[in-house]
Amino acid sequence: MKEGNVMKFANRMKVLKPSDIREVMKLIASNPGTISFAGGLPDPNLFPAEAMKIATDKVLTDNPNLALQYGLTLGNVHLRKKIVALMKREGVETTVDNIAITTGSQQAIAIAAMLLVEGEGAIITENPSYLGAFLAFKPFSTEHIGVNGDEDGMLMDELEETLKNNKHAKLIYVIPNFQNPTGRTWSLERRKALLALANKYDLPILEDNAYGEVRFEGERIPSIKSMDTENRVIYLGSFSKILSPGLRVGWACADHEVILKYELLKNGLDLQSAELAQMQVDEFLNSNDLETHIGKINKVYKERRDLMIKMIDAEFPKEATYFYPKGGMFIWVNLPSHVDTRELLKKAIERKVGFVPGGSFYPGGDCESSMRLNFSTMENEKIVEGIQILGQLLKENI
Amino acid sequence: MKEGNVMKFANRMKVLKPSDIREVMKLIASNPGTISFAGGLPDPNLFPAEAMKIATDKVLTDNPNLALQYGLTLGNVHLRKKIVALMKREGVETTVDNIAITTGSQQAIAIAAMLLVEGEGAIITENPSYLGAFLAFKPFSTEHIGVNGDEDGMLMDELEETLKNNKHAKLIYVIPNFQNPTGRTWSLERRKALLALANKYDLPILEDNAYGEVRFEGERIPSIKSMDTENRVIYLGSFSKILSPGLRVGWACADHEVILKYELLKNGLDLQSAELAQMQVDEFLNSNDLETHIGKINKVYKERRDLMIKMIDAEFPKEATYFYPKGGMFIWVNLPSHVDTRELLKKAIERKVGFVPGGSFYPGGDCESSMRLNFSTMENEKIVEGIQILGQLLKENI
Repeated sequence: MKEGNVMKFANRMKVLKPSDIREVMKLIASNPGTISFAGGLPDPNLFPAEAMKIATDKVLTDNPNLALQYGLTLGNVHLRKKIVALMKREGVETTVDNIAITTGSQQAIAIAAMLLVEGEGAIITENPSYLGAFLAFKPFSTEHIGVNGDEDGMLMDELEETLKNNKHAKLIYVIPNFQNPTGRTWSLERRKALLALANKYDLPILEDNAYGEVRFEGERIPSIKSMDTENRVIYLGSFSKILSPGLRVGWACADHEVILKYELLKNGLDLQSAELAQMQVDEFLNSNDLETHIGKINKVYKERRDLMIKMIDAEFPKEATYFYPKGGMFIWVNLPSHVDTRELLKKAIERKVGFVPGGSFYPGGDCESSMRLNFSTMENEKIVEGIQILGQLLKENI
Repeated sequence: MKEGNVMKFANRMKVLKPSDIREVMKLIASNPGTISFAGGLPDPNLFPAEAMKIATDKVLTDNPNLALQYGLTLGNVHLRKKIVALMKREGVETTVDNIAITTGSQQAIAIAAMLLVEGEGAIITENPSYLGAFLAFKPFSTEHIGVNGDEDGMLMDELEETLKNNKHAKLIYVIPNFQNPTGRTWSLERRKALLALANKYDLPILEDNAYGEVRFEGERIPSIKSMDTENRVIYLGSFSKILSPGLRVGWACADHEVILKYELLKNGLDLQSAELAQMQVDEFLNSNDLETHIGKINKVYKERRDLMIKMIDAEFPKEATYFYPKGGMFIWVNLPSHVDTRELLKKAIERKVGFVPGGSFYPGGDCESSMRLNFSTMENEKIVEGIQILGQLLKENI
């Protein structure tokens, strides 16, 4: 096949660039043996492989004609019923008609942008926020405005100021639990205040709760959706962090009219998500106690978080500060503003340690003096070794 | 949960309407026992359920950590290698770097529109064409121009006239083999002429070959991609019709730069397609002869096509004409222009037979005097009974 593209791409392609994380991952892949705190991967050793094998076998024995055939665009009804039950844990009383299954919650983010934003319409996010969301937003909206936060969530004064000055804002995107990348969890008060502002300025909220079940301590804080009296919250959930990301099963929970629009858009985008994967999750939930499985994951991740925090406290220079994450997969480290973590990464890779420079997570691309450290993937001894190396590097470079 | 949506949707939502087929399918579902020629479903009894179970078990035994984990956005490399081999059958010499795996070829259609079209940009399709493609196009382009055809494909005079008069055209979408809905196959000459016009007017071609392997007779005609000297064809393939649509595994084959754009867009849309599904297909192909399996499917579908043609010849009034399909899943019946097949459908449903009125497949929504009949789903006796009933109805209404 001859190479050399002759096509003219749509203008939306001009703003789409490969994510920094992808570049970091490539760097790490080309340095085998690197201790990686970069990815946001669950530990594959915690996948319920045997139970999933049994569940899959049952599905393909009992219902191969359903599992391998076209199904509903909104997803398998049995699984949607189970998701209705999961939503109760989040304080949301809902029905199957309010659930759309998507290819991971990533697809639910992209569909929300497609549904609500176009052209000059701006999307407001936390500053910093999830990189994958920026990639999902960019084809549909060219402006992303980051609002700063503290350890309790977005700063509400700054948000209101932003809303006042940006009448073209169309959507507020937040990750209230164990946020990617900061690991922070929004307080109940901050959640209520966000809803009040969304009501006042008549804006929809996209509440991404991909990490909510990965809680190590403290009580579950009510979801924003559970307090949503005006039906302006689209809530996103996912089995990626608690079961398996490779199955690509996530969901949106929202007003029925919104879900019907999800159906329309998803119909054009891919007709439906993989049917067998949905039936696997459903059957897994029939035959296994999800709570027990989540408990197993959280026990391991908590141990790793504890170890990483202990090591950071011992090895990092005092100038390094962090949010203490009560769950999730990430620790966010802030460094003095003269430290450029992109430069630091190059040196770290030479010493076979990887992380993601913080600048990647800012819509504006600023703030280069932070780093995201993942603690869910690496085993204890690697955490010890990797943080020691990073600590030395930081001391040399601060 | 309270109902009542308060959100303002993006303008693109105004042109998106649920597809007629969906409404037809609902009608049929609410009339149990209906003989349905409406859907485009493979016969589930032909799914290789047992072989798939064995393949799945092997994947989840040997590689659960890969199958359940995040993978590459462009898809599993082993499967992409197998797709490179499949492309050879289509006369295309290519590499893994030219293949993007997508969630069915439907997603590859949507991504092509995202990549190439925006705003006022028009998409040229066959008239009639695949309904799902219209749904995929609509969020990215408001104008779809249908070009009429005969049994050899699109009429090249009409296409050139259309290209001359529509400088805002951005993409030509065609299904050269056993087209949905007409069942027709483009001649080699027509394929060459299309390429020549695309070269002359500098437009990309989206070649959707979802049905290409479902051939009952005659020689494979070279794909448009195989003759593409300027790299302006994005070729789409799928395992949906020859293996299982529920796994949702399709692909795009194109210039590497185009594939990198697919990667970027897909990254935002859903990160990746289900990894296990890709590994299932790969392992199925390792342990089974695809050719043998396709032969099994085609034998059954050919028998059903033969039967349906025989029944139409015997039962339909002489005014009804059709394209003779050499493969695929559909027979397209043209009726005198005063026959409104939407009205006819209502009467047919009362007598427990379903089909899709032809008007649904026209970008302009015109031409209500045709119908699409699927022959792949129903067993022989139902084909006999259903066509007899339709024949009676037609005679009463012509």
